[in-house]
Formats: sequence, C-alpha cells, structure tokens
Amino acid sequence: MKIIDNPPRSQWKEICKRPQFDVGFLEEATVKILNQVKTEGDKALLELTAQFDKAPLQTPKVSPQEIEYACAQVSDELKKAIATAAKNIEKFHAAQKQTFAAVETVPGVCCSRRATPIEKVGLYIPGGSAPLFSTVLMLGIPAKLAGCREIILCSPPSSSGAVNPAILYAASSVGIAKIFKAGGAQAIAAMAFGTETIPQVYKIFGPGNQYVTKAKQLVNQQGIAIDIPAGPSEVLVFADEQANPVFVAADLLSQAEHGADSQVMLVCAEEKTAEKISRETASQLKELPRRQIAEEAMKNSCAVVFNLKEDCIDFINEYAAEHLIINTRDCDEIAEKITNAGSVFLGAYTPEAAGDYASGANHTLPTAGFAKACSGVSLDSFMKFTTVQKISREGLKNLAPAIVAMAKAEALHGHAKAIEVRLSIHE
Amino acid sequence: MKIIDNPPRSQWKEICKRPQFDVGFLEEATVKILNQVKTEGDKALLELTAQFDKAPLQTPKVSPQEIEYACAQVSDELKKAIATAAKNIEKFHAAQKQTFAAVETVPGVCCSRRATPIEKVGLYIPGGSAPLFSTVLMLGIPAKLAGCREIILCSPPSSSGAVNPAILYAASSVGIAKIFKAGGAQAIAAMAFGTETIPQVYKIFGPGNQYVTKAKQLVNQQGIAIDIPAGPSEVLVFADEQANPVFVAADLLSQAEHGADSQVMLVCAEEKTAEKISRETASQLKELPRRQIAEEAMKNSCAVVFNLKEDCIDFINEYAAEHLIINTRDCDEIAEKITNAGSVFLGAYTPEAAGDYASGANHTLPTAGFAKACSGVSLDSFMKFTTVQKISREGLKNLAPAIVAMAKAEALHGHAKAIEVRLSIHE
Repeated sequence: MKIIDNPPRSQWKEICKRPQFDVGFLEEATVKILNQVKTEGDKALLELTAQFDKAPLQTPKVSPQEIEYACAQVSDELKKAIATAAKNIEKFHAAQKQTFAAVETVPGVCCSRRATPIEKVGLYIPGGSAPLFSTVLMLGIPAKLAGCREIILCSPPSSSGAVNPAILYAASSVGIAKIFKAGGAQAIAAMAFGTETIPQVYKIFGPGNQYVTKAKQLVNQQGIAIDIPAGPSEVLVFADEQANPVFVAADLLSQAEHGADSQVMLVCAEEKTAEKISRETASQLKELPRRQIAEEAMKNSCAVVFNLKEDCIDFINEYAAEHLIINTRDCDEIAEKITNAGSVFLGAYTPEAAGDYASGANHTLPTAGFAKACSGVSLDSFMKFTTVQKISREGLKNLAPAIVAMAKAEALHGHAKAIEVRLSIHE
Repeated sequence: MKIIDNPPRSQWKEICKRPQFDVGFLEEATVKILNQVKTEGDKALLELTAQFDKAPLQTPKVSPQEIEYACAQVSDELKKAIATAAKNIEKFHAAQKQTFAAVETVPGVCCSRRATPIEKVGLYIPGGSAPLFSTVLMLGIPAKLAGCREIILCSPPSSSGAVNPAILYAASSVGIAKIFKAGGAQAIAAMAFGTETIPQVYKIFGPGNQYVTKAKQLVNQQGIAIDIPAGPSEVLVFADEQANPVFVAADLLSQAEHGADSQVMLVCAEEKTAEKISRETASQLKELPRRQIAEEAMKNSCAVVFNLKEDCIDFINEYAAEHLIINTRDCDEIAEKITNAGSVFLGAYTPEAAGDYASGANHTLPTAGFAKACSGVSLDSFMKFTTVQKISREGLKNLAPAIVAMAKAEALHGHAKAIEVRLSIHE
C-alpha cells in the first residue's frame, strides 16, 4: 500500500478521486438497448437475454415451480442465516417509521405531512460470480414494511436459464412473488417502460454493472425515480496505534475483494501504524480466494498519514466514504465529528462485513463522495411525503394580507384574487 | 374548458399527459454553457451574463451595499408580509426535525441513524417578469434550520445589473449573505463546478426555465445532487356540487397565470358542476392581468367527469398532481384515499395560493406525475442520514454464524475472514 505522509490540503481533492473509467462508449449502447425494449417489449428483452446471458427463454417470468425448486436447493444453514439477517433488518427499518403531528402555524391554518408508500417499485439484483442475495433482503424488507403494493424483482439468468437459487429463496422469504429473468440495461428498461410481462414501476432500486448504472441514470431523466447514484464500492478505515493490524487488514481486503474497481483507504495519525497495517494487508492478500480481484483494487488504494488528528477528521469528511470504519480508542468521540459518510462502523468488533449482511443496517449506500449530499437506502426511500393543508375562513383572513401583498409583488394577481373572492363573500 | 365525460381507463394515460415541448435542441446548448463555465470560470460566467441578461458586470458578487440599497426599496407592507410567511414556514419546517433512537437489533449490536446537514447548498431563484422571492423563503429557511454551513444564492440580474430588490431582501432576512448575479444554465454550472468567485456546492435547489432544468439534470449525472425534477406547474381541483364555482375558477386561473406551459385540471362527479365552473372560469379569465399567459395554459387543460366517485379518486391518483385542491363536503375522507400528490389543499377556504406563500408548507413540489415517487422539499432535503453501528465482541459472536454463512454463499471469503480473525483471538 502506498503511504502518503501529511499531504497538503491542496492535494486532497486529487487523493480523494475515485478510480476513473472511460464510460463514453456506454451511453450509445445503453440508449440503444433502452429504445429496443421500449418499442418491442418482451420480444426485445428475450433477444437481449439470449445475446448477453446466453439464456434462451420462452418467457422472462419465474414460475412458482422454479421458486419452489430453488428453495429446496438452499441449505438449512443458509436459510437460518437469511432468517437472522432478515429479522435484524426488519427490526432496524421498522424503527424508522416516522409520525408527524399536525402544526397550526397560525390560528385556523393547519399543516401536516403524510407518508404514503410508493405504489410500484422494481428491485434489480445482479447475478454472476457473486450473486447478491443479501441485497434482496436490504431492498425487499423496507419495501414490504413501507407497504409498496407492487414489488417486482429482476435478476439475470445463468446460461441454463435459471436465476440463482439463493436470490429466489431470499425473495420468496420476504414475500416477493413477481420475479423476472432479466439483467443489465434491458432489465432496467423493462421496469421503467413496462413490457407485456413485466409491469412498469415508479422507482428502481439496486446495484449493477456500468450498463445498469447508466440505464438507471437515463431512465431517471425520463421521470423514473432511482435509489442513489451507484458506483464501485469503497471503504475508509481510520485506525490508531491500538487497532489490531490483523483486523484492519481483513477489513481492507473484505472491501477490495468486491471488484477490481473498488477502492480502500487507510487513514492513520502515526506512520508506524500505517506501515504495520500495510505489511499485514500484503500478507493476508496472498491467502484470499478472490486474490486477483483484490490485488487490482489495492492498486487504487492508499494509506494517508496526518500528524494532527484534526487533519485526519477533515480528510475523512472530504473523502465522504461509503463505509467508514473507525477503529480507534476514542471512536465515539470521533464519530461525533463525522459529517460525511454513508455508514459508520465503530470500534474493534464492528467490521463492515457485519453491516453488509446482518447487523440490521442497510448496505445500499452512497459511493464516490455522494455521501456529502445523499443518504443510503432506508424505509423512507420507499415512501414519499405529501403536505396537507386545511384552512378555515378565519385562518384565511389571518393569512390574507401576507398572501395578497406577496402575490401582487410577484405580479401574480390571479393568486391574490383566489384569496379576495373567498373573503368578499359573507357567510 | 373541454369537458371529458367518463373516459375509459384505457384513455387515462393520454389525458394525464403533461404539455410536451421539443427540448431536443436544449441539450447541446446547455452542455456548451456548462463546459464553458467549468473551464473558464468567472470569465465565461460574466460573458454569458452579458449575452443573455444584457448586463455588463465586473463581478458576479452582490455587494453588502447593494443588499442594503435593495432592502430600503422594499415597502413596509411587503416586509411585514415576508415576515409573516417566514414565521409560518419556519414553524412548520422546524416541526419536521426527527429524532431517532438507537436500536439493539440483537444483544451487543447497536444500530442508529444520525442526521447531518448538507454542508454546502446552492439556491437558484429565477428573476424576470415574476421574481419568485417567495422561493427564497421556501428554500432558505429549511436550509438554515438544517444547519447547512454554506448557503449561496444565484439569481439573474436585470439589464441594469441589479438583482430584484425583493429577492435580495428575502435572502437577507433569512440570513443568506453570499448572493451572486447569475442566471440560467451558467448559474447552475457555477454552483456545480465553482468559479473563482462562486463556491462549489454539493446540492442545488430551485426552479427555473428549461435551460436551468436541463443544466440541473446534466450536473446531477456528474455527481451534484438536485432537489427534484422540475417541470411546469400544475393544479388539479376536485370539486363537488357544493363548491362555489367562483372559488374554483379563481383557483384554476391562479395556476394558469404561472406560465403558458402550466396545466390545470378539474375533476367532478357531476357534469353540471363542471359546466358551471367552466363558464365561470371563462368569465374570470377576461379580467386577469396575465390573461394571455393564462389563456395559453387553459388550452392544455380540461375537466374530467366521472359518475362514480371511486373513479374520480383513481384518476386523481393516476394524475399525481403537484397541487391537489379537494373542494368537497367530504374532503377529509377523500384525502385519506389520496396516494399520489405533491401537496393537498382541503376545503373551500384553502386555495393553492395560501400554500404558495404563507401557510407554512413548502411550495417546491414534484410536478409531471413525479409525486408518484418523489416528495416536495422539506427539512430533510437539506440533510442526509448516516447509519452508525457499534458491535461488542459478544454481539459479533451472536451475528457471526449468519454473516459467515451468507458471505461464503456470496463467494466473498474475505468478508467471512473479517469476522473469523476477530473471534479467533482470545481477549
């Protein structure tokens, strides 16, 4: 791991840059796929699935028999693990329900806020080498808790035409019945525009490759809401001299194994600590099954050392990590000073892996510095809030001078008139 | 007003379509402006301001003297009105502060959620024929309440080089000091990328013309958050036979006067009611100062009649109006059945104009059917939520079997290892 010693603030922006990829070629290809599915529906979807997933299908729909068969293939150990994770995710997300009391801003003027579920949502779950069935829980459970009426799920089939059994089991365990075999930009298109088989939804959730991300961006511009701008996963670990280098190295590598485009960062207040952790990381890397992926990711990564703890904190806030592990003696105190992070993990026994699966917190989080302005997925992500106002005649009288003066100053006389006609009539 | 009688559901999508404009030409022009400001900063900004606003400026910065001068120009009546509106907006938005208790999902596993303000936000306020100083309050007050550290405001200057005095007064009254003379796509570019004078922000708020909207979309793709997808304003009024046609017509026209691209819809359960209101609207239209604008908008508009009240409600939810006025005897009962709307106005004495200015609710709302998935601006729009997890050794032991089983099933052995190394050490 490259160690950068006390970089001046003028260099921070450069150090905080995430790995850049040339994605210019993506847009044209993605637009073409979106248009194809928009105009030709299922026919285009099945053709693209045959082309990209090598799976010749009659229909994108996963049948109840397929779900049943998949459930039988999942081991009891994994079923138990999924049940534990689901229970914790449900507990944490159920606690996020908000109540909002009505406010009488002036006598006779009552304002309130109502939460309603988004009626139709679509979840995208990548397949491939690491089938993210955990993401089914992270998206499906809050969608159910929110009360979304129609929840659909798309995941690419293998070349045998089947969706990964753990994904089907997880979906079925949270009560999602409408599951479709579709991957990539074509799956996003199907959910955004609808096909003969796949219903159109109002908001699309879930991670994916660069085509999926680009497709989500493009349909977002056409009025379909999306969860958060997605990018490669990342972690920043802040470690002090008491942190066990074995723990820290394992945390860095658990992030690096996600993908060659992942980034892991280490911040320390002592150069010796950074060196120890760097050596331990190199040593653990050798034993990792996904070593080749992690090695690539480690090339995007570095350790940054600052003598002043305040600089460490400022740098951490500038980086705005998706996952921030604070493995220091004073972790609670440091956490109070963190302004930008997707999810924070405190102390020696809180690895990111716990939050990825089973602590109960959500693992769909803002990457690439978006934590400066965005939140991760929560119960609210599946709801929307409507303000409701009710004004009595007396209330309107109280507000009238202000409304009329402002409307006229904005040259909107029709607005003023909507008040005046009401108050000119004697009841 | 065209009256459509009991349209079948197959026609609803077509009826709910918002006025369409050819915006193909926009993208190229907007991209050019964005790039110009990104590479040349203030120089490009001043050139574009000279070109589009006909204002030759030395600096985009509004000086304290200019603010002072503007404040002296605003009438006492308007100052009092702004103070009333501000007080109500503050009261309603302050009540939106959430507290979130930590949850122990399993013994030793503590998850919580922390709200932090978005550090740097930019507000865009259109100038021109209807200077929306009310929007300064709607965005500035929640930004202040949230605790955003840097709040900047851009608004286009008139050809004399001055920003509208009421906009400067409103900004100053809510405590915004960094105000810049910049409009259109160039203002959005300046806030998104920063210039020598204008600081870069993390999230951009505010309405604007098609160039502003397109620029917000484009910078959003580059990682700058935006408030909500914006579009022309709209209202849907649901009126029954007891509704006073004079009130309803005034409400329809107060929306229509916003712009030629506005849309107003009327839904009734009786054709006679729709006819009465339609006649009254035509009659009031003649007296409106912004008659020409409103006339154009009324061409995009229609009344829809359904004999069944349930159909009325379903249609209203399908339309998903930015503003929904329910002027019926049973308005509270109906409101309970509304699933999609930006803001709801209940009863005879709750005109949209009240919410536009002074009831306390926010007037920055989702248009074009986005209310199906999006909320209007609220206190939360200026904050983000970070999950925080803290796990004890015991807690990790409790979670370990689930995490390890799931990580291995997802082929992420490094994740499993981050747990195993921690529990293999005896404390």
